[in-house]
Amino acid sequence: MLNLKHIAISSFNENLAYIHKDCDAYKIDDIRSLTKIEIHGGVKPVFAFLQVVDDEEIVKPNEIGLNNEAFECINLPEGANISITISSPPPSLASIKRKIAGNILSSGEYSAIVNDISSKRYSNMDIVSFLVASGSFMTPPEVLSFTEALVGDHTLSWDNENIVVDHHCLGGIPGNKTDIIITAIVSAYGLPMPKTASRSLTSCAGVADTMAVLANVDLSEEELKRVVQENRGAIVNYESLSIAKTNQLVSAVERNIGLTQLHHIAASILAIKLAAGVTHLVIDIPVGPNSRIKRTGEAMRLRKLIEYVGDMLSIEIDAVITDGSEPIGNGVGAVLEARDVMKVLRNKEDAPQDLKEKSLFLAGRILEFDPKLRGGQGYHVAKEILTSGRALEAINKIIHAQGKAPQPQLGHLTRDIVSNISGVVESIDNERINKIGVMAGASQYAGAGLDLLKKVGDRVEQGETLYRIHSVNSTDFAFANSMVDGYTGYEISGRSKY
Amino acid sequence: MLNLKHIAISSFNENLAYIHKDCDAYKIDDIRSLTKIEIHGGVKPVFAFLQVVDDEEIVKPNEIGLNNEAFECINLPEGANISITISSPPPSLASIKRKIAGNILSSGEYSAIVNDISSKRYSNMDIVSFLVASGSFMTPPEVLSFTEALVGDHTLSWDNENIVVDHHCLGGIPGNKTDIIITAIVSAYGLPMPKTASRSLTSCAGVADTMAVLANVDLSEEELKRVVQENRGAIVNYESLSIAKTNQLVSAVERNIGLTQLHHIAASILAIKLAAGVTHLVIDIPVGPNSRIKRTGEAMRLRKLIEYVGDMLSIEIDAVITDGSEPIGNGVGAVLEARDVMKVLRNKEDAPQDLKEKSLFLAGRILEFDPKLRGGQGYHVAKEILTSGRALEAINKIIHAQGKAPQPQLGHLTRDIVSNISGVVESIDNERINKIGVMAGASQYAGAGLDLLKKVGDRVEQGETLYRIHSVNSTDFAFANSMVDGYTGYEISGRSKY
Repeated sequence: MLNLKHIAISSFNENLAYIHKDCDAYKIDDIRSLTKIEIHGGVKPVFAFLQVVDDEEIVKPNEIGLNNEAFECINLPEGANISITISSPPPSLASIKRKIAGNILSSGEYSAIVNDISSKRYSNMDIVSFLVASGSFMTPPEVLSFTEALVGDHTLSWDNENIVVDHHCLGGIPGNKTDIIITAIVSAYGLPMPKTASRSLTSCAGVADTMAVLANVDLSEEELKRVVQENRGAIVNYESLSIAKTNQLVSAVERNIGLTQLHHIAASILAIKLAAGVTHLVIDIPVGPNSRIKRTGEAMRLRKLIEYVGDMLSIEIDAVITDGSEPIGNGVGAVLEARDVMKVLRNKEDAPQDLKEKSLFLAGRILEFDPKLRGGQGYHVAKEILTSGRALEAINKIIHAQGKAPQPQLGHLTRDIVSNISGVVESIDNERINKIGVMAGASQYAGAGLDLLKKVGDRVEQGETLYRIHSVNSTDFAFANSMVDGYTGYEISGRSKY
Repeated sequence: MLNLKHIAISSFNENLAYIHKDCDAYKIDDIRSLTKIEIHGGVKPVFAFLQVVDDEEIVKPNEIGLNNEAFECINLPEGANISITISSPPPSLASIKRKIAGNILSSGEYSAIVNDISSKRYSNMDIVSFLVASGSFMTPPEVLSFTEALVGDHTLSWDNENIVVDHHCLGGIPGNKTDIIITAIVSAYGLPMPKTASRSLTSCAGVADTMAVLANVDLSEEELKRVVQENRGAIVNYESLSIAKTNQLVSAVERNIGLTQLHHIAASILAIKLAAGVTHLVIDIPVGPNSRIKRTGEAMRLRKLIEYVGDMLSIEIDAVITDGSEPIGNGVGAVLEARDVMKVLRNKEDAPQDLKEKSLFLAGRILEFDPKLRGGQGYHVAKEILTSGRALEAINKIIHAQGKAPQPQLGHLTRDIVSNISGVVESIDNERINKIGVMAGASQYAGAGLDLLKKVGDRVEQGETLYRIHSVNSTDFAFANSMVDGYTGYEISGRSKY
């Protein structure tokens, strides 16, 4: 028997157990690191992966250390008596081998895999194994099975609401923060919209990052329900809710290895929205040469897939394919994006028109989920709500209800990237702009990012600024500068395009 | 800048960096666990994966902790000044995505992937990603590229030797420890045989585990060379040598996720043997319904693949497909297997005949690599060397040269599994026998395992013992007992088979 000790290390959702190399109870020589073990002593066995320690200040030979994740699972006080056994691999790993061999897995197999992930029987390596194995192909019924499994048992319900709406964008377009404007318009109209957003690692800012500039986004389910009940809308970080937890584990791993397969994305989005109790969903699929989805055919396949799964799971889907050829709005990075959003909501003259128009278009599609609204009227109703100031009023109420955030400052290290010729902006490369923004610190610091002063079709004179880099610290600033000197992401043509 | 600290945790080959959540120099809020970072301050940047700590006894806010693996890479004293940057993903990860999409990768791509793995730019999750992506298929030229990349720069050379031989068995057959007998015979004959063996996690004992019962197997390259020079043979744990290091990293991960794809196995075996300087290799491919390779067609595909890669890399291959329908010898588990091996070498009357005959057959194939030997004479020469006692003399010299091991005891917790009917042993299930042996503790303790008193074709009376379980500790013993009560692995028929 070993004595339980809490090791305050956080290890990316994975349960780790630390055992001294001269462990009293077990011969560690032959138990190698990352061996899967079962830890006994609590209500039920906890699965964990072994790390071998050679420092008695971390764990003594008569102790077993558990990291944050595992310590929370076992739910016992330090000093409790613990025994361990070597764990046999979960049977669902056999399904992964079947998938590698090119088989179609059954609904029961997806359910077993998701259950084993949620009970921490999979290491992060096992999760990768599943993701990559299912990454080459999944049939639509497989995506359906995987989605159903990810929804899980715990879902939000919205009493007395026949329609609960949401909007999701596939992403890949810098600055594209229509969501906050849409939520403001839709909630002002009166349809309940509990917008579940996420923070980002690979882009400059997720919707939750931009909203976090304006308000607290880490709400409990009770708080979310109260905010939506009182204001018909909210924008929250879905990771703060306890819905679709397994999807969170899987997505974090997927992001870490940089894998983004369309069928996984479809399952992930729909699982979150279904678990959030959404009944009607608009999905924005931007297509462009430097967008996440590059060809219309690919977008169409994704749309059909999402529609199929949505139909089978009784969620009304309106998937729209939009222009993803350049960034939307001027700001890229949370603080700059929040500025653009508020300019639109405040009906400022210098508000970015592309952001405004796209938001009105998408909000209109959502409003038309309301049976009382005539087909084709959505856009005009949305526009009336925005220009009248009711959308601004709605977002202010939502911000107040969620709790105002301590506003972060825009990064004070700046550099203007200027055009070396006169002409017209031919194209802006989304992926390059995103990369430069991330290097400038945008995924880490709300105040970092790029301010795009010129967009496609704009006239530009030699020496005029194309965009401004903002960084919070000098290391990021230096990285962004050295990157931008290679290729700015802008193509300028000498002749006028129009 | 942060101060370097060594955290004596061993993490399965992966470089981990520990940073306090209130880190002085970096804002950890947005740097999530397992973010890839570059650590600057040493001769060249070291790649590592972040773990967030909330305990100043582990790391203080002005410190960065590195686990054993990372601390060894950076090669600086504790207290050294360190800075970190977020690492961009290695470009070779793009090749993995191409592989997931079903592409054939180039030789340059395999070389880049292996280089990035060896310089620790891949997390274990990334390695899994590669293994699973390439797990569905690899063309023979891809296997060739992968093998070449795995061989690496550092290889052993054997001065003045035209022929350097080795033997490798694909495994999956409990008790099948021909290697030690073969090495004894071949070295007695005079061909140099530096047998590189491995320890096992998934089977009851690897060749290195069984040899470790008799002698020290963890030799340095200099020691290996000396032993082979003086005795013409040695049997070492290849992980103690510094050859094919990347293959070791990859194999450890592959074993952890339980993936064994034939094309990976082919690349791995050939890379080790090429790096060990072997010029002539016999490969034993056992086929049987409960062997690793179940069908002759599969074995033939593997043989063709190995022959193709071998031909391209100028290593002479003799791949033989053998009967893998039941365990070889009586002992399963290191101590019991070593007993069988020594019985054969000592020409004992109760030596297992199947182990003896298989060893003579394979040793004969190796001897025939010698141009001086007439075709078909190998077996007879091998038999003469064995029966004359020269093989025993050779192994004793090798054991003495490698260093005698402190002989482990056979597990004293025993149970006889008896037949409930009289009849003839129809079949013995390799996989079941292996599993029961592993549960009995055989992969962890040399003294644990199974002693098979009856083999296929043997007459057995009701109540007579089929096999005996040996365990070292009571937990393992209980597990093995509960498992064996489900299904013993033996099929007995009432009628005589012959």
